[in-house]
Amino acid sequence: MSLAQGRPYLAIPGPSTMPDRVLAAMHRPAPNIYEGEIEEIAARVAANLRRVAMSSSHVAIYIANGHGAWEASISNVFSRGDKALSLVTGRFGNIWARNAATMGVDVQRLEFGIKAPADPAKVEEALRADKDHEIKAVLLTHVDTATSVVNDVAAIRAAIDAAGHPALLMVDCIASLGCDEFRMDDWGVDVMVAASQKGLMVPPGLGFVWFSDKALAASREADLVTPYWDWQPRAFPEMVYQYFGGTSPTHHLFGLDESLKMILEEEGLTHIWARHATLASAVWAAFETWGQEGDIALNIANPTHRAHSVTAARIGAGNAQRLRSWLEREAGVTLGIGLGMAEPGTPEANDFLRVAHMGHVNAHMTLGALATMEAGMQALKIPHNPGGIAAAAGAIAKGAGQA
Amino acid sequence: MSLAQGRPYLAIPGPSTMPDRVLAAMHRPAPNIYEGEIEEIAARVAANLRRVAMSSSHVAIYIANGHGAWEASISNVFSRGDKALSLVTGRFGNIWARNAATMGVDVQRLEFGIKAPADPAKVEEALRADKDHEIKAVLLTHVDTATSVVNDVAAIRAAIDAAGHPALLMVDCIASLGCDEFRMDDWGVDVMVAASQKGLMVPPGLGFVWFSDKALAASREADLVTPYWDWQPRAFPEMVYQYFGGTSPTHHLFGLDESLKMILEEEGLTHIWARHATLASAVWAAFETWGQEGDIALNIANPTHRAHSVTAARIGAGNAQRLRSWLEREAGVTLGIGLGMAEPGTPEANDFLRVAHMGHVNAHMTLGALATMEAGMQALKIPHNPGGIAAAAGAIAKGAGQA
Amino acid sequence: MSLAQGRPYLAIPGPSTMPDRVLAAMHRPAPNIYEGEIEEIAARVAANLRRVAMSSSHVAIYIANGHGAWEASISNVFSRGDKALSLVTGRFGNIWARNAATMGVDVQRLEFGIKAPADPAKVEEALRADKDHEIKAVLLTHVDTATSVVNDVAAIRAAIDAAGHPALLMVDCIASLGCDEFRMDDWGVDVMVAASQKGLMVPPGLGFVWFSDKALAASREADLVTPYWDWQPRAFPEMVYQYFGGTSPTHHLFGLDESLKMILEEEGLTHIWARHATLASAVWAAFETWGQEGDIALNIANPTHRAHSVTAARIGAGNAQRLRSWLEREAGVTLGIGLGMAEPGTPEANDFLRVAHMGHVNAHMTLGALATMEAGMQALKIPHNPGGIAAAAGAIAKGAGQA
Amino acid sequence: MSLAQGRPYLAIPGPSTMPDRVLAAMHRPAPNIYEGEIEEIAARVAANLRRVAMSSSHVAIYIANGHGAWEASISNVFSRGDKALSLVTGRFGNIWARNAATMGVDVQRLEFGIKAPADPAKVEEALRADKDHEIKAVLLTHVDTATSVVNDVAAIRAAIDAAGHPALLMVDCIASLGCDEFRMDDWGVDVMVAASQKGLMVPPGLGFVWFSDKALAASREADLVTPYWDWQPRAFPEMVYQYFGGTSPTHHLFGLDESLKMILEEEGLTHIWARHATLASAVWAAFETWGQEGDIALNIANPTHRAHSVTAARIGAGNAQRLRSWLEREAGVTLGIGLGMAEPGTPEANDFLRVAHMGHVNAHMTLGALATMEAGMQALKIPHNPGGIAAAAGAIAKGAGQA
Repeated sequence: MSLAQGRPYLAIPGPSTMPDRVLAAMHRPAPNIYEGEIEEIAARVAANLRRVAMSSSHVAIYIANGHGAWEASISNVFSRGDKALSLVTGRFGNIWARNAATMGVDVQRLEFGIKAPADPAKVEEALRADKDHEIKAVLLTHVDTATSVVNDVAAIRAAIDAAGHPALLMVDCIASLGCDEFRMDDWGVDVMVAASQKGLMVPPGLGFVWFSDKALAASREADLVTPYWDWQPRAFPEMVYQYFGGTSPTHHLFGLDESLKMILEEEGLTHIWARHATLASAVWAAFETWGQEGDIALNIANPTHRAHSVTAARIGAGNAQRLRSWLEREAGVTLGIGLGMAEPGTPEANDFLRVAHMGHVNAHMTLGALATMEAGMQALKIPHNPGGIAAAAGAIAKGAGQA
Repeated sequence: MSLAQGRPYLAIPGPSTMPDRVLAAMHRPAPNIYEGEIEEIAARVAANLRRVAMSSSHVAIYIANGHGAWEASISNVFSRGDKALSLVTGRFGNIWARNAATMGVDVQRLEFGIKAPADPAKVEEALRADKDHEIKAVLLTHVDTATSVVNDVAAIRAAIDAAGHPALLMVDCIASLGCDEFRMDDWGVDVMVAASQKGLMVPPGLGFVWFSDKALAASREADLVTPYWDWQPRAFPEMVYQYFGGTSPTHHLFGLDESLKMILEEEGLTHIWARHATLASAVWAAFETWGQEGDIALNIANPTHRAHSVTAARIGAGNAQRLRSWLEREAGVTLGIGLGMAEPGTPEANDFLRVAHMGHVNAHMTLGALATMEAGMQALKIPHNPGGIAAAAGAIAKGAGQA
Repeated sequence: MSLAQGRPYLAIPGPSTMPDRVLAAMHRPAPNIYEGEIEEIAARVAANLRRVAMSSSHVAIYIANGHGAWEASISNVFSRGDKALSLVTGRFGNIWARNAATMGVDVQRLEFGIKAPADPAKVEEALRADKDHEIKAVLLTHVDTATSVVNDVAAIRAAIDAAGHPALLMVDCIASLGCDEFRMDDWGVDVMVAASQKGLMVPPGLGFVWFSDKALAASREADLVTPYWDWQPRAFPEMVYQYFGGTSPTHHLFGLDESLKMILEEEGLTHIWARHATLASAVWAAFETWGQEGDIALNIANPTHRAHSVTAARIGAGNAQRLRSWLEREAGVTLGIGLGMAEPGTPEANDFLRVAHMGHVNAHMTLGALATMEAGMQALKIPHNPGGIAAAAGAIAKGAGQA
Repeated sequence: MSLAQGRPYLAIPGPSTMPDRVLAAMHRPAPNIYEGEIEEIAARVAANLRRVAMSSSHVAIYIANGHGAWEASISNVFSRGDKALSLVTGRFGNIWARNAATMGVDVQRLEFGIKAPADPAKVEEALRADKDHEIKAVLLTHVDTATSVVNDVAAIRAAIDAAGHPALLMVDCIASLGCDEFRMDDWGVDVMVAASQKGLMVPPGLGFVWFSDKALAASREADLVTPYWDWQPRAFPEMVYQYFGGTSPTHHLFGLDESLKMILEEEGLTHIWARHATLASAVWAAFETWGQEGDIALNIANPTHRAHSVTAARIGAGNAQRLRSWLEREAGVTLGIGLGMAEPGTPEANDFLRVAHMGHVNAHMTLGALATMEAGMQALKIPHNPGGIAAAAGAIAKGAGQA
């Protein structure tokens, strides 16, 4: 007998739960890709992608995942040998930096560990030290999906400005866009990278790069670009296929068109940010209560440094893996594995897990996941202070109905 | 801002949550209805319907809802003026009896209120009083969807036998089949009625009548039957369209074929019964805890009299309706209204609600519903003893993994 | 190797090809059935059903197929022993009459064979002979799906009026509604019966009965009605579940709501009638050309007596069945079997077939079916005059673009 | 009134018509991307991709369209300044060559016009002239989607061998794989490129590169590769995400897994090739008949040089565009625009069109398209010899049922 028989709930930090409407929008025959409806959809999606980033500038759409979008961003901005300053706060910032280096960029890393955001003072210091302004861009991860830390983008921008440095600010919002507040124009971001499968609620398969006029100007002197990654024809197309560098991603466009409508026309960005903040508060309340006994602890101690889309935590003593298995087998819930907290394959890797609360997620889904976790901890006799789920319900009671 | 934005959870006692696989199975072009695949599907569905009822006898499939299946059962068994003994334990038994009377059956009612099952001793007594054996059949509701009482079918059968009475036993399993244990052959049931949209996890649109050889013999002398309700050609078809009295319900058959495969080949009936029993225990634990303060109370006091598929409860003071609205608006959960507990439209009708846990439902879905209820009671300041959700999680922890 | 590998085309006279949008509309979770969206959908569907019938009066929706809708119509209008005059022009009129008789109606049949419509003069004559006006209603099939004859409804109404007879006119439009022109009010129809799976382009599962105030008045004195078939609560509901006599057919309503939108708001009834007329003309042109040699012949010789939704034809010498098999196996096309032209199971039954062109059907689908038929006749060496498909293409060229 | 109201038929050369089963397979919630089912699917898809190419070597899967797959193939094989010999037989070979040049490859072009395949003798001559064996690879388009020419891959391989040249043979099968016969191992192909949206019957979004051990060895010395395009981790993954360079294309994998099952387990490659050959013969028969009058002509005169997946033709005098518009508006058929036959935007560009017959396409779909074309030519009075559709039906009659 298994209590998992029912609708499974996937609470991994991407792909997230797709709305039924998005999957339904994708369930239709292919359209003509040279004329007609696809032209309207492509134009509307591009316009709405700018709105969702609070950006007045440009966007290129790629058939690619987040790694592809990273490569696109590097490819357009840099020439071989150019310098970049990478602010590393977790596994994903680390890979972006490594890939840039593989592509020929001279990457200087500032490491901030796996439990804290980038320190603007250190960024300012590093930029001041670059007296010849050789650093072309600063690379920052808004939310690191592995550590669940959130970086203060505006503060990093302020640090760059305070240093009087002309570097571009390039931000990876793959795990935050459509979840945590982000304002491209207001926060002075030059290049932003995201993908379809998290806050945008569409299956994996599309990556996006937004870029400012300043970044566009910089790209004109860069030499790493290849035909596929070139953002110029994609952002300024004359024919519809130029949006996509060839054949359109027809079905993903149908899905994304629907999800952007839900985000922008129906719920609204500020409501989405508030919803994610409240759901995150419920998750934190549960973990903080459970953690008053045993080894359970949130990865990020300071609430203001925690992402609203995903929560990384330590359960300890191999129990994260036991709990994840139990939840999948007995309760219908799949949590994310810990990533970047310990060497994969070691016993310590089994101490960590992640709970996602990104995108199409509501009080029922989130409280349900936390309640089954509490049940699982009891069933498996994992040491914890009871009452986490009651605390989470309290957080929801408090947050619900607020503007 | 609303915390309901996400996948909605419908916890009303039918239609229940359809598995994605069932909806997907229904999303296909129509087939030929005179030959080919439809012949195999119809035969397999009919065979599997007998298995799900633990019946070795006959089944007729109707394009109809449960009211239609009721009418079919009456129509085949009775002649105008025949006597029936109706055991009324709630709204639905009441309507079945009323409809039988409207159709010309002379219905004798035994009323057991809305908080208790039928008492076998009273049934035996009533049958003994029918010395001429004029009562042709006893009508019993296995689980009344409104009161959430479960009747002891085997005990009623024993009562009939103890009275030495030849009456047929006709049972309505609309709200129990595929949820609560039911054994048509073992329990001596002659006619059983169900529908597609509850434990069978298919959209509303099909009703079913199973019948024994004894019922078949009785039907040969009955005169109420009409061409549409006649179970004879449907149960013993020579051509595929006879299963359905005309055009086949093609898409419902695709869905039902898939759901019966899930029930019989994958999960298994005994596992399904155990899952429902455990999920029900979690719901009861929550209500029993909450109810230690304030007006909250389960409708059925005795746990052995409670259905495993749905739970009716009193919240009191109009708070059931307030809570239901809050859950729909703020948490993405839809609970059932109270039915038959008070006059519709009166303030008292707002004191009651029902939580369904029937069909495609798992620990995540059920605990999620209970946790949002606890959040809602806090947010609305509905008097309750806190800790219901923790108690429910405990019940899940205890029940999970059992054979 | 098979040239059938591709999207199959079903050209049987019901179920017809469902639009992707209808199937997509049905692919969603169940809704609450007591309040909310379902109330709006039910009201809109009922209003639009009246529009599609060009009726200002009443409609009852049944979870049932066409046989159920027939039974509903009989059940509400007649008392046991009442007289009806059945105009029989094919298999389906025949069954409707037979079922009415089984239900206790005293049915007088006027038979018009299987190759011609009902003759208004004979109807008038029969009614004049009923001097005491004992005939309560005249039963007429608008389009008989088996013979593909179309009856002149307005002429029959005129015949009834000419006879000065008060009989109700009851018409079966199952195979014509949404295909052939039909005007309930203008043509003086009192009761009309249809179902979801033909011109309305929704899977089988819903039947409908429209009725005039005169029919409503008649129903008040009738005694055959049962709770399920009673049209009163369904047509004049106070609560949403009364529309459907219990649980709503949720998913069929989603589909029907979409198809009625396509019919009424997008294409428009007059355009739909014109499209069917032109597609029918192409089918006739093909058969008339082929039939200049060999045994091939349309069932209905007079074009004004031919339905626009389905065409029955004789191929002869067992070749209809050979051609149907070849088309299914080699070309991806399924045609309808002949019905009611010869005794089922006899060799002669294999001489006949039907091509449907009802509902969601366009020039590509229809010409594709005819072209594969011509290919099949060549491959199987079935005697025919070549050029049928060229003639059909000519009919399309002529009809296209007309107002 | 429009005769297009019905199921639209898209006959453009990609994206092709997706099977309902493929779209249905993609309509499901996202899975975990780190463990479980996705691991099995990825491994099975990779193995089946090798089978569909008749290749025993390696395959890398990219979230990308065909342009991305082109870039991947160049990126892994070449270093900056390496030489390539491009055999250009149409627009797509042209762009592949141009993109390679943009990426830094020194491309030598052999142009064969837009009406003929590459001439092996000229290839041999060019390679013999490369005495120092500086040409690292020969680039060939199997079927050019614009001209609909098919190249003789084995003959080009023989020419390379006859020249005693070590060049790799790189072939673009985007428009042929799963349609025209292709045998990677037997034909000595080192690198092959394809995409999901044509013969593989899955929405656009995946590109593929197959490569031999010889190509793998060559890639070890190449320096153009970037992290996203690197085929090494994708073809030899240790973790499931390495197949895809990050997040898996979950829904496309569901679709591709289904389509490969249909191709390999159900229909079989040789049957698929035969089906496409027969359907192509029908299309050619129609055009050859029509072209006996007026300006209508197939682009490729020699039948052995014609692709089996797509047919390019001249209609002349702006009539291709008129016919395409009529078909879309009046008949429900969308044909492909002419590409690369005349300057886009000029009046001459309106003289050409393409009919696709690739992937999930059967006799009904193809004959339906041709029949509506004949109707359109009549309606628009486009000069043509009548009888094309009859000739096409004859070709189907002849080809059907062959082994």
